[in-house]
Parts: sequence; structure tokens; C-alpha cells
Amino acid sequence: MVTYGEYLKLQQILNAQAPSSAVGGKAAHDEMLFIIVHQAYELWFKEVLHELDSIIEMFAGNFVDETSIGTAVARLQRIIQIQKLLIEQIKVIETLTPLDFLDFRGYLPGASGFQSVQFRMIENRLGLRREERLLYANRPYDADYNAEEVAQVKRTESEPTLFSVVERWLERTPFLQGHGFEFLTAYRQAFQRMVQNDRRTIQESTIISEDERNLRLQMIAQTEQLFSKVLNEKSYGEKREKGEVRLSYNAFLAALFINLYRDQPILHLPFRLLTLLTELDEYLSLWRYRHSLMVLRMLGSKMGTGGSSGHDYLKKTVDKHSIFGDLFGISTLIIPRSELPPLGHELVRELGFFYSHV
Amino acid sequence: MVTYGEYLKLQQILNAQAPSSAVGGKAAHDEMLFIIVHQAYELWFKEVLHELDSIIEMFAGNFVDETSIGTAVARLQRIIQIQKLLIEQIKVIETLTPLDFLDFRGYLPGASGFQSVQFRMIENRLGLRREERLLYANRPYDADYNAEEVAQVKRTESEPTLFSVVERWLERTPFLQGHGFEFLTAYRQAFQRMVQNDRRTIQESTIISEDERNLRLQMIAQTEQLFSKVLNEKSYGEKREKGEVRLSYNAFLAALFINLYRDQPILHLPFRLLTLLTELDEYLSLWRYRHSLMVLRMLGSKMGTGGSSGHDYLKKTVDKHSIFGDLFGISTLIIPRSELPPLGHELVRELGFFYSHV
Amino acid sequence: MVTYGEYLKLQQILNAQAPSSAVGGKAAHDEMLFIIVHQAYELWFKEVLHELDSIIEMFAGNFVDETSIGTAVARLQRIIQIQKLLIEQIKVIETLTPLDFLDFRGYLPGASGFQSVQFRMIENRLGLRREERLLYANRPYDADYNAEEVAQVKRTESEPTLFSVVERWLERTPFLQGHGFEFLTAYRQAFQRMVQNDRRTIQESTIISEDERNLRLQMIAQTEQLFSKVLNEKSYGEKREKGEVRLSYNAFLAALFINLYRDQPILHLPFRLLTLLTELDEYLSLWRYRHSLMVLRMLGSKMGTGGSSGHDYLKKTVDKHSIFGDLFGISTLIIPRSELPPLGHELVRELGFFYSHV
Amino acid sequence: MVTYGEYLKLQQILNAQAPSSAVGGKAAHDEMLFIIVHQAYELWFKEVLHELDSIIEMFAGNFVDETSIGTAVARLQRIIQIQKLLIEQIKVIETLTPLDFLDFRGYLPGASGFQSVQFRMIENRLGLRREERLLYANRPYDADYNAEEVAQVKRTESEPTLFSVVERWLERTPFLQGHGFEFLTAYRQAFQRMVQNDRRTIQESTIISEDERNLRLQMIAQTEQLFSKVLNEKSYGEKREKGEVRLSYNAFLAALFINLYRDQPILHLPFRLLTLLTELDEYLSLWRYRHSLMVLRMLGSKMGTGGSSGHDYLKKTVDKHSIFGDLFGISTLIIPRSELPPLGHELVRELGFFYSHV
Repeated sequence: MVTYGEYLKLQQILNAQAPSSAVGGKAAHDEMLFIIVHQAYELWFKEVLHELDSIIEMFAGNFVDETSIGTAVARLQRIIQIQKLLIEQIKVIETLTPLDFLDFRGYLPGASGFQSVQFRMIENRLGLRREERLLYANRPYDADYNAEEVAQVKRTESEPTLFSVVERWLERTPFLQGHGFEFLTAYRQAFQRMVQNDRRTIQESTIISEDERNLRLQMIAQTEQLFSKVLNEKSYGEKREKGEVRLSYNAFLAALFINLYRDQPILHLPFRLLTLLTELDEYLSLWRYRHSLMVLRMLGSKMGTGGSSGHDYLKKTVDKHSIFGDLFGISTLIIPRSELPPLGHELVRELGFFYSHV
Repeated sequence: MVTYGEYLKLQQILNAQAPSSAVGGKAAHDEMLFIIVHQAYELWFKEVLHELDSIIEMFAGNFVDETSIGTAVARLQRIIQIQKLLIEQIKVIETLTPLDFLDFRGYLPGASGFQSVQFRMIENRLGLRREERLLYANRPYDADYNAEEVAQVKRTESEPTLFSVVERWLERTPFLQGHGFEFLTAYRQAFQRMVQNDRRTIQESTIISEDERNLRLQMIAQTEQLFSKVLNEKSYGEKREKGEVRLSYNAFLAALFINLYRDQPILHLPFRLLTLLTELDEYLSLWRYRHSLMVLRMLGSKMGTGGSSGHDYLKKTVDKHSIFGDLFGISTLIIPRSELPPLGHELVRELGFFYSHV
Repeated sequence: MVTYGEYLKLQQILNAQAPSSAVGGKAAHDEMLFIIVHQAYELWFKEVLHELDSIIEMFAGNFVDETSIGTAVARLQRIIQIQKLLIEQIKVIETLTPLDFLDFRGYLPGASGFQSVQFRMIENRLGLRREERLLYANRPYDADYNAEEVAQVKRTESEPTLFSVVERWLERTPFLQGHGFEFLTAYRQAFQRMVQNDRRTIQESTIISEDERNLRLQMIAQTEQLFSKVLNEKSYGEKREKGEVRLSYNAFLAALFINLYRDQPILHLPFRLLTLLTELDEYLSLWRYRHSLMVLRMLGSKMGTGGSSGHDYLKKTVDKHSIFGDLFGISTLIIPRSELPPLGHELVRELGFFYSHV
Repeated sequence: MVTYGEYLKLQQILNAQAPSSAVGGKAAHDEMLFIIVHQAYELWFKEVLHELDSIIEMFAGNFVDETSIGTAVARLQRIIQIQKLLIEQIKVIETLTPLDFLDFRGYLPGASGFQSVQFRMIENRLGLRREERLLYANRPYDADYNAEEVAQVKRTESEPTLFSVVERWLERTPFLQGHGFEFLTAYRQAFQRMVQNDRRTIQESTIISEDERNLRLQMIAQTEQLFSKVLNEKSYGEKREKGEVRLSYNAFLAALFINLYRDQPILHLPFRLLTLLTELDEYLSLWRYRHSLMVLRMLGSKMGTGGSSGHDYLKKTVDKHSIFGDLFGISTLIIPRSELPPLGHELVRELGFFYSHV
């Protein structure tokens, strides 16, 4: 009979804490916390990789069925729940004061919290590219890894990423035209109508001040400019070349379409998927940000373990290492439901359930 | 050079996940989560034991200096922060649906979540006594442990507990009498004055209804009765024999004194210590309660893994396994600051800092 | 031009704090917190009612379209997010210590936290019935309300509730039979097969102890008995008459069907809806439980404001006032995916998207 | 008899929601959430001001007794608990999707979330100075306030702030010299000893690579330079003039002393006070950061309500509007306990409790 402890291999797990300060003679009480909190992080990183791998695999083919999208949504929610936990875990580390940290910091080897191989693999699998990474001290992120570790991160650099499979899946969205509906044209017209109405209302208003009127007209002009730039394959392409956007034009349009017509049954799960990707990105940013604050509090502006500059470096990665930032941008292009171009009977039928038409 | 991964023994930690469903052929995706979440719990249990051991050791002697109380307070706060994390972790388990759980539940051996040796050790070290434990199926809690595990829990049963060392420390509180002040007498008188005032106010009030008046007078009578029963060594002793209270009479009085005069500098840390003990108990209850809800959601009213009845058993332990419940009771006996008997110049001087009197 | 402050009517909101201790002469500092925390609760209760009303209205008709289910799901998630906030808010109240509370408790009128009219309305709209309410001091819950308040709660007692509209919606689920599929029969057979397999496996196992074997066989027998009792209209009806279950038999079967076949596209949103109803119930229980702990900590075992016995009363409502408890019970009846009776080609087609079959 | 509803002025509170979209004909369902969430924020802002005012008042005099520090600590903890709640509240707003927001956004007047008068007052009372504020569109932050509102914020600009009273209180710390102990000299020497030891250890080490050796020596040199710059009245003064630090030199030294010798009983509460000020700052930053993410998600890169540029503006205030940043910097200067210069018998006596010396 296998027991609970054997099943969980607790002997192995609970004998893996070897405080280095103990070697030096007197163990610093708080080093145990330091070790355990990092081991807990690594366990969770393994779980996140397990989920990411499975989602990418499901989306890697040429066809993704409805059940898979449902499963992917559930697993993304799990990843996000784990991200929230990882952020909460920072509060536990913060019970370690700078003064108590100094009791064993000298015993820590070149080890740095930035060196987690698994965390780099998570970033790679999400879609962070080597060339986008902020360098520390002008050295590649795997400079201090051993051969096996380098092989591991390199592998995740060359495989499909969550970003790439989602992008391809978006590009295949079939509903953007057909049945007499051409999404982009209809959407551009709707947008023009909306803008013209807004402009007239503001110009005719008798209750707002002249300042306010000008400010608002100026806002409208800005929005108009933004629209025309983004909804044009050529200028979008230019923005993409400059690295301002990352999604392909067609994937971007599909994401916009899904956001606008998310009330259609068949778009419901795709919309949730996109929403969860922005949440995942948001919590990743939040984790980096909290981490940077924690390091500031612990180390001040001293250089971190492993030679990294700590707070400043982490702070800069908050925005720089975002993966799904383009999906945030879509809010800028949303127009009110009342202005949405109607989809036409045939298309609505296709987007609905079979049962409803029996 | 030791690397980050070597220092944390990550090879050992990250190779300890062996899904049993994989043995049967097709690994159930979600078993990884099940394993990792339980391993994370066990890591944290080890850390909690590490903290508890150190606090008990500090309080085990005949004299506890101020710095130790400060350290104990900081470590209790850490334990509580970990408890909050453990409760958050339940939200991660809850991403496992009952249907997905069934995909591998059949492969789990006699293992049950109730069998964690470390969790039993935590309970023992806090002060839960074998005879107070709710039995499952009339069997002792260590019935299924192997010899080594039995030895471990037995050891924690015979050692000093957090409850016992705190109780002895409270009993030694030196300020309850002296310098012409006799706490219990002064407090009883203050209480009587307060009750008489309250009663008169209610009887003379012209704005409350007759019903309300009677209700309030009845409440006062109840409170009076409670006071007289608790603040009497003999009747307190009887309550204690029946198991209604657990702290010794003198420890209880000291806790009351500390609660009432916590504004005095020397009582500041002791007051925080007592407050944290009630918080620890509160979060332990909350954890048991959340755990019971989670089991209900996952298993319904089916029997749990390892033969335990799950939800019902857990639900009953919520109150039954409380350790520091007596400290909650103290709120019942608090009287307003304005009614507190004054301490006298000499005693205030003793309770303050030396510097202020230089 | 309306300003931010005017739009939010801040004059009205921020002039609504009138500490009663101030009237008595010296305002107790902490009474402000007490007032504001309760006002914040009431604001959120209003929002919850706003959401509940809209959900019930959407489900009150004879047909609920897909978009409405999506909207209901989103609004339930919002309610749950608010519930989480209300639970967090308890941590703010807990910064008020019993001793500081006593500084103004005497000034509070017959007012009790239990008297919130809006909270009673929320309970009523969810589906709590007057006869199921735990009485305090043998008096109806609206005994101390004024005429207008009584009218408000009475109205919510007679209107459709979330429970009743969801029950009727479930009863109308069309897929339980047809196309050569009869859910209940197929499910009963699948269950029997599963049980027989389990029994054989256990009997033939050579690695488990005799004790373990007996325990497991006994568990199977219990589960079998439970199934036969619940999946029988007559005995289910008897359980319902005794108040052990509340949902109608047909609604219960539909909920079971949705839980088992939730991977089918058309059942995806209904499954989320049911899941959110159990979450809502879980957080409601959690709120009651946290509330009861907080009252214990604040008041000990003294009677509460307004004559209620506080902790004990609240503690009892945790389970007693559950609304959607039946949905938890469904976990007991779930069988593994691998054992699920297949739905048949025609039915799968009906449960899918139109587009997939074009 | 005053009822619960009357005491809380619920008529006034619950009749203060007037959706502007309702005026235009069809009320947008989600505007209620928008109004209520902002009103809840304003209620909590009032409470935070209530606490801040009382703390500043306690510290405004020339002498702050021990009990006041205890009270200030408790109230800062309350403010932090409220800050955590305000951050959680963002999750509730995030249930409002960009598309649903558009249903009523057009009806919102020039109102902007940035305009909260109370929030500006909180910033002012904490110690944010007008000249440090990031300008939006080159206009002062109170440009759109009415006369009464301008008067309110101007008043909080001219009164003592939490920063200023804490700074003066720190400057009065009496223990930095006397009884043959001169803190700064002793500390400088200890630091030198520590650095020399570290340098020798690294130079003599045979297990680290040459690269690692150089990196570490370079880190030590940097730390040395930082120390010499900060712990010198003249160069500190220069940094202060450039706006790199804000605390006066003497207040800064006192804060350092308290951090190093926090184990002394009399320094226990002051240390907690300083720690809570950094936490308050941390949660304020976190709130600004979460707010900026939320705005990005809701509005994309469109300009915000009231003409503000939303996300970018908020993002920049995260660091720029920090108040107690200097206290984070202290971690940089902490040295291990084992290196701390001893305080001398006389001074330890002064820093301890009277009772211990009776």
C-alpha cells in the first residue's frame, strides 16, 4: 500500500532544505523561510509550465475544436489563479526584514532570484523573444546556466509559443466576411458615423464651456487619427515593423471582431480566451512590479544577489516583457453596441447553436 | 560555485511528481496539480513547524526577555501570513472540477488529505491534545501511520506546547498586585459601578420602549452573572473541570489584565502576542472551514479518500479543535477605558520606560 | 457643467456620518469607522440587489436566450466579486478593538447589524423563505422594521426568486431525451457498470489489506444506496418533503445532465451558471462564518446590539440559510468521463454550433 | 428610538445614485456599478482622512508619548488595511467591460476619476507638495475645482503633513549620542570593518571564478561610495538640494539608528511606525499602478474622461508621487547584527523598561 507521504514523495521534498548558514556554524533562523518560499515558487512554476504546454499543444494544430477552447479557458483560469497566489506569496517573503536577511545573505552563493530556469521557460513559452529581453550587464539571460539548463531554455525558444499559436488561430477566424458582410468596411463606416455624431453634438452643445468644447473636439480628432492608422494594412505594417504592435494585421482584426461581437454564441469562448490572455499579462506585470518593490524594500539600491541591480532591472521589465499588450490596445477601438454594424441574418445563424434552428 | 538550482536542490524538488494515473497508462492532466498543491502545503507546514519550534523554545524557560517577545510576535505574524496563503491556495485546488478529479481519483491509494503527519504535528505543537481530537471511525489519528511517523507525532505530544508555555508565562505576570493595587478587587468594583450606572440609565430612560427596556435589563443581568462566575476561583475551576475553559485561573486573570491595560508600554508587546494567538486560531478555524466547503464541492457527501467522511468530519473540527478559544472569551469581560481602575503612580512608573524617568 | 462631485452626489454621501457619541459630548474616534464600514456595506448591498433584480427578470420569462445566459453569468461573477470584497471588508472592521468599541457602544441605539433591510431583501431575492429562517428570540425577522421597511421585504418575499426562476429554467432543459437517447436510463446503466468494475477490482486486488478492502467495499455500497435513493422520483420526493433537498426532481436531473455533459458547446454557459450559483452560496456561507468569528472576537459571548445573541445566532445561519445547497450534492453523483453514456450523433449535432455543420 | 437605518442615514446614502444615462432615456445597467464603486471610494477616503488628521495632530506637538505612538501605529495599520481594500475594489470595477462602459460613457460629464478632491487632500496631508505633482496638460491639479473645493485642498497644503511631523519627531530622537556613545562614528567604523572583511574574504577565496571575484569587488566599491556620500552632512545636503532625498540629515540618521537598534524595547514602536510608513507608501504605489492598468484595459490609449491621458499619466505618478521613499533607501545602509557597534550598559538601560531595573 502506498501511503499519502510516499505518493507525494515527502521524504524527498522535506529533506531538500539545506541552509548554507548552517555550514558556517550557526544557522540563521530565517534562511529556512528563504529556501522554502523559493522552492514553493519553483513547484508552482512547474505546474504553470505543465498547463502552458498542454494549451499550446491543443492550439498547435490547424483546427481547434470547441471543447479544446473550453479546456484552454479553464487552464488559463488556473494559471491566473496560481499567479494570484504567487503574488500573495510575496507578502510571506516580506516578513523577512532586511536586517534578518543580512544574517545569512553572505552565505548565499552567486545565486540570484533572477536565475530561475523555469521562470525563463515560462516567459519563452508565453512568447517573450530573446531579442526583446532587457539585458542585465550586457549579458544574455542564460550566461550563467550550465549546459543542461541552456539546452532547456533554448528548446523553449524554438518551440511554438502561446503567442504564436493564438495568433495563427485568430488568423483563421472565418466570419469576417461572407454572406454579404464585409467586417472592415462596415466597421469603418460605423466608426465614421459615430465620430460625426459626436462632433455635431459637441459643436451644438450650449452647456459646455468653450475650453471643454475644444478639448473634446481635439480628443475626437486624435481618436480619428488613431483609427485610420491602425485600420489600414500598410500603416499597421509600419507600426509592426517598428515593434509598436506585435500581432499580425489579420489576427488583430479577428481579435477586434471577437471583442465587438462577443455576444454571439460561437464567439463567447473565444472572447473569454482573449480576456484571460490580457489578465494573464496583467498579473504577470503585477508580479514583476510587486517583486521590484519587494527587492527595493529588502536591498535598497544595493546590487542584488548574483550581481543584478535588482529593483531597477525588475522595474524596467514590467512593461518591456509584456506579451499580449496588443490585446489591451483593442479597447481603444471599441465602439458602442448601438453603433455596431448588424451582422445579417445568415451570419447570425452561423454564429448560433444548431439547436436554435432545428 | 553553487548555483541557484543547486542551493535550492531543485533536481530533488522538481523530480518528485509521479502521477499514479500515468502508471495505469494515460496520465490524467490534472493529477499534476493535485500533487503539486499538496507538496506546496507540506513545504509550508515544515516552515510553520520551524517557526513554532523556535517560539516554544524561547518561551520554555523561566524568563522571557523583551527581545524574545518581539521576535515571537514577528514569527507569529509570519505564521499567520502563511495561514492566509494556505487559505488562498484552496482557490487553486478549486480549479480542479469534480469531473476532472474523477479522471485520476481511482488511482490514488489509501492516501487521504487528512493523513498529513506534519499537520498533526502542528496541531500538537499548538496544544491540541489527543483526547480532544474528534475521532474518525473510532480510530486514533495515527492509526495508519508507519512506525517512524507514529514516533514523530508522539514526540510532539509529549513536548511543551505553545499553549502550555504561554500559559506559564502569563501566570508569571508580576503586575497584578503590589504598590497598593490589587487588580481583581479593583476590577470587580469598577465592574459593579459600571453595571449600576447602566441599570439606572435604562430604568430612567424615557425614550425606549418597555420591551427594549426589559430586554436590556435582562442583558445586564446575564452579563453580571457571567462575571461573577468567571471571576471566582472556585466556579472558574468548575468550568475548567468541565472543559469549558482551558487556561489556568491565574493565566486567565493575567490575560485579562493585559487586555485592559495594554496602553502601558511594557504591556504593549504582550498584548500583541495575545492578539496574534487569537488571529492564529481564527485563521486555523477559517482554514478548516474552507477546507470542508472545498471537500463538499469536490466530493459531495461521498466518503473521502482514505475512508474519511470528508465534509462532515472537517466541519466538526472547526470549533472542536480550537486551541486559544479562551482568549476570545476575554472580550466578554472588557470594560470601557473610562471605567478602568487607575493603576497608581508607582505601578505606572514600573510599566513604563526607564528613559522617561531619568 | 456637472462636476465629478455633483455627479456622485458627494455632498449627500459625505455629510451622512453623524457619530452618536459626539452628541454625548466627546466623539469616540473609532465611531467614524463603524459608520463608514456599515454605509459601504449598504452601498454594495444596493448594487447586489440591482444585479439580482436584472438576472431574475431575464430568467422570469418562458424562454431565455443565449445572450441572456451570457449576461447573467457576467453579472453573477460581479456579485461574487462583490462578495469577496465584503469579506475583505471584515478585516477593516477587525482593526476596531473590543476596548475601543466600548468607547461608543453605549451610544448606539437599538440598532443591530442584523437589521439591514437590504441584506434581508438580498436573501429573499436569492430564495430564502421566511419559514426557513432561524428565528431570533422567537420573533419574525421584520419585527423591528417600520411600515415602509416591512412593505419592502414583504414585496421581495412574494416575487420570483433567483432559485425559482433557475429551477423553472432547468426544468425546461430539452435534451434529456430524444434521438434514441434516454438520459436517466443510460446514466443508471453506466453507473451500475462502474460500480461492478470497482467492486471486482477491489475484491481481486492483492496489494491492499483486508481492512482497507472492507472499508472500500463498504464505501461502494453506501454510494450505491445513495444513487438509488436520489435517482428515483418517489424517494427523491420523500427527501424533498422532509426538506432535505429543495430543487424539483426534473430540475435536479437537468442540473446533473448539464454537469455531466458540460463539454458540449450549448451546455457550456449553463454549466458556468450552475457553478457560479454554488460559488455565490459558498461565499455567502463564508461571509456569515467570518461575520460570526468577528462578532465573537468583538463581543465575546455577550449579547449583541439589538438584543441578538450574536456569534451563536450567526454561526447557525451559516448552513441553515444556504440556498443552492442541492447543487453541491451533484458532485456525489458525478461519474468519470470514461464511463459517460455516449450521446449519439444526432444529439451531439444539436448541442453544437450551426457553423460546424454548414 | 433611532433605528439602524436612521443611525446610518441610509435614506440619504441609498438615494444618492442618479445614473445620467437614465436621463437620456434608457438607463445603462452598468452605470449603477460605476456610481456605487466611486461612492464607496469616497466613503473610504473620508475615513482615511479622519485617521490621518488624528495621527498628524498627535505628532504635531513637541512631545509624543508612548501611548500616542501605539495609537498612531494602530491607525496606520487601519489605513493600510483600507488601502488593501481599495486595491481589491479595482477587481470589482474590472467586471465592467470596455464595451459595456461605452453604453453610458457618453453621458458622463467632464467628470474624471482624477478629480476626487478628497484623494488630493489625502496626498497633501501625507506630504505631497504642489511643486512635485506631475502636471496634466500643464494645468494645476485644482484648475477644475470650484471655489469651495479649492479652499479645501489649499488648506491641506498649508497645514502640517504626516511627512513633516514625522520628520520633526525623528529629529528629536535623543539616543544618538551620550553615555560615551557617538552613533555616527561607531557606525562608520563598524561599516569599514565589515567592508574590509568582505574584501579580504573575496580576494582570498579559491572557489569563485575570476569574473565573479571582480564583480563582487566592484559591488563592494559601489556600496562603499554610497555610504560615504550618504553619511556625510555636506554631500547628503547636496543630494537633498537636487531632490534625490527629502528627509533632513538628522531625521535620516535617526531613522537609520531606529532600524539598526530596533530590538531595544523603547525603539520597538518607533520601528513599527517607520515600517508602516513604507508599507503605506508601497500600497499607495500599488494602487496607482493597478489603477493605471485598469484604465489601460478600459480605455486603451484613448484620452480619459475629463481630458486626462489616463494610463500614461497615472503610470508616471506611481514613482513620482511617492512620499516616504527615503525610508526604503535605509535598507541599503543596514549592516548585519553581528557587526553592530554595542550600545553600552547605560544606554541599554535607558532604552529598556523601568521594571527590568527595579
